[in-house]
Amino acid sequence: MAEDVDSQVVNPWEVTAKDGGKIDYDKLIEKFGCQRLSDDIVQRVERLTGRPAHVFLRRGVFFAHRDFNEILDLYERGEKFYLYTGRGPSSEALHLGHLVPFMFTKYLQDAFKVPLVIQLTDDEKCMWKNLANAKDIIACGFDITRTFIFSDFNYLPMGNFHAYFLLAENCVIAFYENMVKVANCVTFNKVVGIFGFTPEDHIGKISFPPVQAVPSFPSSFPHIFSNKNIKVNNNLRCLIPCAIDQDPYFRMTRDVAPRIGYQKPSLIESSFFPALQGENGKMSASDPNSAIYVTDSLKDIKNKVNRYAFSGGQDSIENHRKFVTSVFLDDDPELEHIKEEYGSGRMLTGQVKARLIEVLSELVERHRKARALVTDELDEYESVNL
Amino acid sequence: MAEDVDSQVVNPWEVTAKDGGKIDYDKLIEKFGCQRLSDDIVQRVERLTGRPAHVFLRRGVFFAHRDFNEILDLYERGEKFYLYTGRGPSSEALHLGHLVPFMFTKYLQDAFKVPLVIQLTDDEKCMWKNLANAKDIIACGFDITRTFIFSDFNYLPMGNFHAYFLLAENCVIAFYENMVKVANCVTFNKVVGIFGFTPEDHIGKISFPPVQAVPSFPSSFPHIFSNKNIKVNNNLRCLIPCAIDQDPYFRMTRDVAPRIGYQKPSLIESSFFPALQGENGKMSASDPNSAIYVTDSLKDIKNKVNRYAFSGGQDSIENHRKFVTSVFLDDDPELEHIKEEYGSGRMLTGQVKARLIEVLSELVERHRKARALVTDELDEYESVNL
Repeated sequence: MAEDVDSQVVNPWEVTAKDGGKIDYDKLIEKFGCQRLSDDIVQRVERLTGRPAHVFLRRGVFFAHRDFNEILDLYERGEKFYLYTGRGPSSEALHLGHLVPFMFTKYLQDAFKVPLVIQLTDDEKCMWKNLANAKDIIACGFDITRTFIFSDFNYLPMGNFHAYFLLAENCVIAFYENMVKVANCVTFNKVVGIFGFTPEDHIGKISFPPVQAVPSFPSSFPHIFSNKNIKVNNNLRCLIPCAIDQDPYFRMTRDVAPRIGYQKPSLIESSFFPALQGENGKMSASDPNSAIYVTDSLKDIKNKVNRYAFSGGQDSIENHRKFVTSVFLDDDPELEHIKEEYGSGRMLTGQVKARLIEVLSELVERHRKARALVTDELDEYESVNL
Repeated sequence: MAEDVDSQVVNPWEVTAKDGGKIDYDKLIEKFGCQRLSDDIVQRVERLTGRPAHVFLRRGVFFAHRDFNEILDLYERGEKFYLYTGRGPSSEALHLGHLVPFMFTKYLQDAFKVPLVIQLTDDEKCMWKNLANAKDIIACGFDITRTFIFSDFNYLPMGNFHAYFLLAENCVIAFYENMVKVANCVTFNKVVGIFGFTPEDHIGKISFPPVQAVPSFPSSFPHIFSNKNIKVNNNLRCLIPCAIDQDPYFRMTRDVAPRIGYQKPSLIESSFFPALQGENGKMSASDPNSAIYVTDSLKDIKNKVNRYAFSGGQDSIENHRKFVTSVFLDDDPELEHIKEEYGSGRMLTGQVKARLIEVLSELVERHRKARALVTDELDEYESVNL
């Protein structure tokens, strides 16, 4: 397989760069068959939404797409679309890398004023993790009148908080029907090709991809999208903001969609939020020092940045530092100024680190305050309006 | 595989005897690892229930089991169990072979006074078939206060009839959770071994066995089994009456059950209702002349029995005729009389056929009348009491 030849592995379970180097995103785009997000598209987004593009767009964090231009075309014609994003269970607390798609999705929802569905995929062991994750996601500030957060199957008593997860009965069934439709279009050989499954894998793993696929189809949510007497329209387009390691799920989805009478979802895809140690992977929940968690104290953040950030090979230090700083420093002139000062030697590593600590601390603190305001009684997330 | 060596294939998708001969049930029992249903057990059933054994037990239609004795043990101690049976979609109308497990299940429910869940497994193309099937199943006369009929996923508007299919929200989720638990215990290699799946099969087919497995676990129905303040008890045993071709599903289920903390279901298994043409297979919906349908007119029945019954090879005619007649002729002395008269040549083939036509016509007519009484308003099937 291509992954073996260029020794760069990117799939939903693994992100590993070539020989410990950095991820080659151009190769990834070529291999996956998606498109580079051009400056023209970014400018078109600004024009259509009448606001500056999100820092993640301006700085190339979201760098690839599939048919995003078609979404912009229909928006320009005054038509609707909806957003779908989500996350799987990995750890109790989210790190900043996890928040990237949600922060960007919030921007898209605000800019385009569109509905959003968020799927928390889960397994039977970690229902309580979803509870914590859902609060962190809600803290990103989505428009509660247009957002539906649900777990793929755990609708269980969680105090009043359960309302976030409410799947109307009709939805459960429609959702499951679409899962079966998708599953009946994809052979085992096909998922071996796309995901690298082996015959030793459990059929639970093998049968999972349709779960991630079906929120791409509006008919999976008849109750949600039939509010205000709007009939569920299978032609309603879906835009999925996600990290590019999720692309295999949606390659499969886009392959199946026309065969079951649905529209292909569009995608807008991000690079991986780099580990603090360097650029050869993504911030990972399995190595606590590689990530800044939303639960980290200001002291933790300071310690992690000073001890672990920029300690990779000499070559990659500068690019990496620029990247991490640029992702969360929204102020274009200031970033330009730092680049100049640091490049000329007038600004030292310690000063850049100090500014990064400030930026990250501010972000985490803001998140923590927003999260504290998420009460267990907010049940408005279940009613979504187009 | 053993199936290739003795050229007898029995699985949920195919029943083919060796070289067009008859199914060797002794070999099947040995291969599957189930137990022969002894006369002792039949007598024990009569003793425990205080009524004659069902004709299908007396005549060996139900001939094999797995741990049925354990169900009788607990019943003798005054404990509860529940029944689970079902059917997949195959044709709009059911034939008599389809009714065998339901007629027998009705007897078990009446004799032991236990709750029953009936799963109609479905695919996305044939929701309306389930509607017709459900009416035929209900016409078998189950105790409506103890029976829950549901479709594995189609809870869709079907007039007032939908109540039969009502899956309480809690049930859907618990059901799906158990599916995931089972699926996470079974590898692709394992289902290849049990069901003969190939890599060209769709993942929908590969992921189906857990759907058939989980009604064996009472925790899949928290809403149903928590009526009357009885807490769902994972130790509630399940007895599954089914044709032996369904055994692979429950071998898998019994293998998985202890690993996820559940009791193994017990089984009581029937031979196949033979095709009218002979003994080498089962009555099949794919060959309309091989089966008596519940929708057949009395003229159809007469024509099919006269034209198609007993037209196999000379050797098998007598056994086959005996079998078909004996399955539905409940009257032991009359059957004995027919055997004697026919054996001595005093009774001719035409006379036996005429009696068979009478018996089958009576059965179909009785079914048709019962079915006509099944209204769309019977919603009592959703509440089950232990």
